[in-house]
Amino acid sequence: MQPAQMTAAEVRELARTQHMTTTSGYAAGYMQANLLAVSQEYAFDFLLFAQRNPKSCPIVGVLEAGEYSSELLPGGDIRTDIPSYRIFKDGELVDSVEDATEYWDDDMVGFLIGCSFTFETALVDNGIRLEHIEQGRNVAMYKTSIPCAPAGVFSGPMVVSMRPLPANQVADAVRITSRYPSVHGAPVHVGNPEEIGITDLSAPDFGEAVEIPEGYIPVFWACGVTPQAAVMDSRPRVAITHEPGKMLVTDARDNQYQVP
Amino acid sequence: MQPAQMTAAEVRELARTQHMTTTSGYAAGYMQANLLAVSQEYAFDFLLFAQRNPKSCPIVGVLEAGEYSSELLPGGDIRTDIPSYRIFKDGELVDSVEDATEYWDDDMVGFLIGCSFTFETALVDNGIRLEHIEQGRNVAMYKTSIPCAPAGVFSGPMVVSMRPLPANQVADAVRITSRYPSVHGAPVHVGNPEEIGITDLSAPDFGEAVEIPEGYIPVFWACGVTPQAAVMDSRPRVAITHEPGKMLVTDARDNQYQVP
Repeated sequence: MQPAQMTAAEVRELARTQHMTTTSGYAAGYMQANLLAVSQEYAFDFLLFAQRNPKSCPIVGVLEAGEYSSELLPGGDIRTDIPSYRIFKDGELVDSVEDATEYWDDDMVGFLIGCSFTFETALVDNGIRLEHIEQGRNVAMYKTSIPCAPAGVFSGPMVVSMRPLPANQVADAVRITSRYPSVHGAPVHVGNPEEIGITDLSAPDFGEAVEIPEGYIPVFWACGVTPQAAVMDSRPRVAITHEPGKMLVTDARDNQYQVP
Repeated sequence: MQPAQMTAAEVRELARTQHMTTTSGYAAGYMQANLLAVSQEYAFDFLLFAQRNPKSCPIVGVLEAGEYSSELLPGGDIRTDIPSYRIFKDGELVDSVEDATEYWDDDMVGFLIGCSFTFETALVDNGIRLEHIEQGRNVAMYKTSIPCAPAGVFSGPMVVSMRPLPANQVADAVRITSRYPSVHGAPVHVGNPEEIGITDLSAPDFGEAVEIPEGYIPVFWACGVTPQAAVMDSRPRVAITHEPGKMLVTDARDNQYQVP
C-alpha cells in the first residue's frame, strides 16, 4: 500500500511493529502530533507552559496519568505507536528507543502537540513547493534567541522550523498557514535568521540542513520541538518525547484544524 | 468621560472603587474576560477541562498561585478589579461581593477566559444589530444538554449565549465570529433550541431574557459561563467567579484575537 493511502491506525501498527525512518508522507490528511510525557508533578506547569506559548506548543490532546490511549488513537498505545522515542533524565538525552514502555511510569501525563505536517499538506495543496520534501530530507529546526513565556519549572527558547520560499510565495504561505492557528499558525519570522539568534542555517539543532536555492527567503514557523528544548533547559526528572520527524499519527483530520 | 472611550485601567479602577451594573460598552476595543479561581489542587484539572472544551472555555491568561496581577491587568488586582464576584462553596453559590479579597486563598490560581463581548464588537462593526444591546439587557445564557468533555474532577453541561438574528444575517454572523476561535468562535447551534435541551427561551439560566422579533432565528454560541456550570456540578471546595455580564477588562486588544 502507498504510504499516503494508509489509515492512521495502519501507520500506528507499522510504527509498533517495524522500523520507520519518518512518518512524513504517511496517511495523508490525518493529523500528526508531537509527544511530551512527564510525571504528574510537572503536568500543570507544562500545560500552562503550552497555554502561554500556543504558537510553539499547541495542545491537541492530553492523556491523563494512567491513560495510554484516547479518541485520537483508538485502540492504540501511546508508549509503542510512535516509531521512535527520546528519553530525557534531568534534561539529558539518555536513550533512544522504539518502545517506551520500560521508561513509562504510571503517573505520567502524555501531551500531544500539533505538528507543522498539518499545514504543509495545505501549502502543497495550494501549489507551494517545499524544499525539504523536494530534497528528501527532514525539515531543518533551530533553537532561537526568542524566549518562551515561562510557567512553573518550564522555560527555554522557542524552536522554529525553516522552509525556504521564493519571494512571490511568502505572502501566500503566510495567508495559508494563518488559517491553522492550532498547529503553529502564521510564521514567527521572515528573512534574516541572525535577528532570531540563528548564526548558521547549515547547522540545524534538530532535523536536517536544507539547501536554500538562490533568491529564496528563509521563513520560520514556531515548532513542536520547543518542548524538547524546554526539557533540556528545565530538567524535569524524566521526560519522554517522540524523535523529531517521527510523529504520532492520529485519527483526527487535518481539516478539523482549519479556520475560519 | 464616555464609557466606550475609557481605557481598560480606568474601568478597572472604576470597578475597584464604585458600583457598576455591567462592563458591556466600556473601554471599546479592549478584551474583557471571565474569571474562575480555584485552589491549586484543582488547577491542572481545570486547565485540562478548558483545553478539552476550547469553544466554551478559551483560556486567555492564567495567574499562578500567589499572583494577583499580570500583563493583562498591569498594576491591577484580580481580587478587586471586577465589578462583582460570586463565591461558590462545594458547588453552592454562597455569596456575591464587590471585593473578593476575604475569600481569596494564597494558593488560588486565577483563570481568565475569553468573552463574547470581543466578537460582539466585530459583529456590530459589520452592521449586525444585536437585540440584547438594542433592548438594553444582559445577553441571555442557557445550560444545554450538550455535555462538556470531562477532565479530572470537572464535568458539566455547555452553557451558551443566544443572539436572535434575521435569517439573512446568520451566515455573516457565522463568518465573522469564526475569525475569533480564541473567544468562542463560530456558533455551536443555529435554530431550534429544543435540540440542545433548551425548553423555554424566556427563562434563561443566566443573564436576562431577550425578546425575539418575528422571523428572527436564535443563534447559540459557547459561553464563558460554562465554568460556573462545571463548578455547580463538580463541587470544588471553593471557587470564585465574576458575576455574569460584569467582566475583567484587560489591556489586551480585541484585534489580537482575530485570525487569519
